[in-house]
Amino acid sequence: MGRFRLTLEYDGTGYVGWQRQDNGMSVQQALEDAIAGFSGEAVTVFAAGRTDAGVHALGQVVHLDLAREITADKLRDAVNAFLRDKAVAVLHVEAVREGFDARFSARERRYLYRILPRRSPPALDRGRVWHVRRDLDAEAMHRAAQPLVGKHDFNTYRSSHCQAESPVRTLDALDVARVGEEIHVTARSRSFLHNQVRSLVGTLKLVGEGKWPESEPRAALEAADRTRCGPVAPAHGLYLVGVGYED
Amino acid sequence: MGRFRLTLEYDGTGYVGWQRQDNGMSVQQALEDAIAGFSGEAVTVFAAGRTDAGVHALGQVVHLDLAREITADKLRDAVNAFLRDKAVAVLHVEAVREGFDARFSARERRYLYRILPRRSPPALDRGRVWHVRRDLDAEAMHRAAQPLVGKHDFNTYRSSHCQAESPVRTLDALDVARVGEEIHVTARSRSFLHNQVRSLVGTLKLVGEGKWPESEPRAALEAADRTRCGPVAPAHGLYLVGVGYED
Repeated sequence: MGRFRLTLEYDGTGYVGWQRQDNGMSVQQALEDAIAGFSGEAVTVFAAGRTDAGVHALGQVVHLDLAREITADKLRDAVNAFLRDKAVAVLHVEAVREGFDARFSARERRYLYRILPRRSPPALDRGRVWHVRRDLDAEAMHRAAQPLVGKHDFNTYRSSHCQAESPVRTLDALDVARVGEEIHVTARSRSFLHNQVRSLVGTLKLVGEGKWPESEPRAALEAADRTRCGPVAPAHGLYLVGVGYED
Repeated sequence: MGRFRLTLEYDGTGYVGWQRQDNGMSVQQALEDAIAGFSGEAVTVFAAGRTDAGVHALGQVVHLDLAREITADKLRDAVNAFLRDKAVAVLHVEAVREGFDARFSARERRYLYRILPRRSPPALDRGRVWHVRRDLDAEAMHRAAQPLVGKHDFNTYRSSHCQAESPVRTLDALDVARVGEEIHVTARSRSFLHNQVRSLVGTLKLVGEGKWPESEPRAALEAADRTRCGPVAPAHGLYLVGVGYED
């Protein structure tokens, strides 16, 4: 019996999200099916971030236990062979100690949100960026984001379905920068509330459009009132970039 | 009657290439259908580069004539509205003089070829990069490419179906560089022969793998013999990035 840590890349477009659900194919099921395919073992895979439908990953981390003896590299290649026709790939596998837990051992999650602010729709990056038909003031968005960094009650910026007991989180970074013709929002925290990044991005967009003053996202935070949040940004612009662990 | 110049972005994945063909949907037909959709006019569109099946464009340039009076911005938005469910978008439109010809007035074409050299397949960029399962020596590829720059007989590096009368072209730049985890080959010339970029990339890859010495691509060029070319790189890593005109 060995525990493995896998780093995954996936295109969330065709999936109902990370987690197994009755209403369609999840990334979790695609991965568990691939593992069962080559090993014959019915395993359960646990992820660091339970991404929503349409959300992508460049570096999701999961763990699983296998009865079968296998090297990390062979496990990576075997799972990738069974994932061939899926938009999921295993980037890296390593054997880990039994106590390692992809979710509970994580010390940091990093997300990227891609906005494409231009008149014409994306032909190549459809479903990969949030297309906004006018330019946004990225510098104003960045300035408005800075007072949100730190330890706060983020009740304003979480889904009404969020099941976390406490709305208090420590946001370590929230940066907005222009990258080519896109605007990238990057967020870093030990853990995020449900829809927290998309709520923050949708609100900062109002600042970028000049509809909200730069001080408003902070004032909405202080109100700790979900009705003060801007519109939630769509799932398809969001990427789980990476997960940090102590080792 | 007015002539317009359009700049296009497209995902070549689902298309038989730029040019109208009997065996499937072409980008040309998708665009001509969209124009007919809003204007009722059966127009023919002429492109700077007749990209092959699977080849993408970030900045293809085309021209067309319309009887109907319309501003450039309205033309862009109307065509994009009719292209909504296609992987083709009009980035820019401008009214041009009658003598402008997207193909024959072009002074420079720029191509990008994206290689992803890593063990795991791409989940997000499938059909957008050439996946090569081992790392390549990008610096050796760049050095091997430099003696190909300039005015040469490129018979070695063109398709046996190439219909150009002369195999002589002037290659203005052929650069190989690492960009993140990818290797990008960029090529610039007034015009290219059929399959020239993909033939060059496929040959340089042999150098990157250490299968060919750095001097061999130049020796193959001098032989002016198609059988000396390496394997042609697949279409789906290639992008027409832009077209230059005198104005």
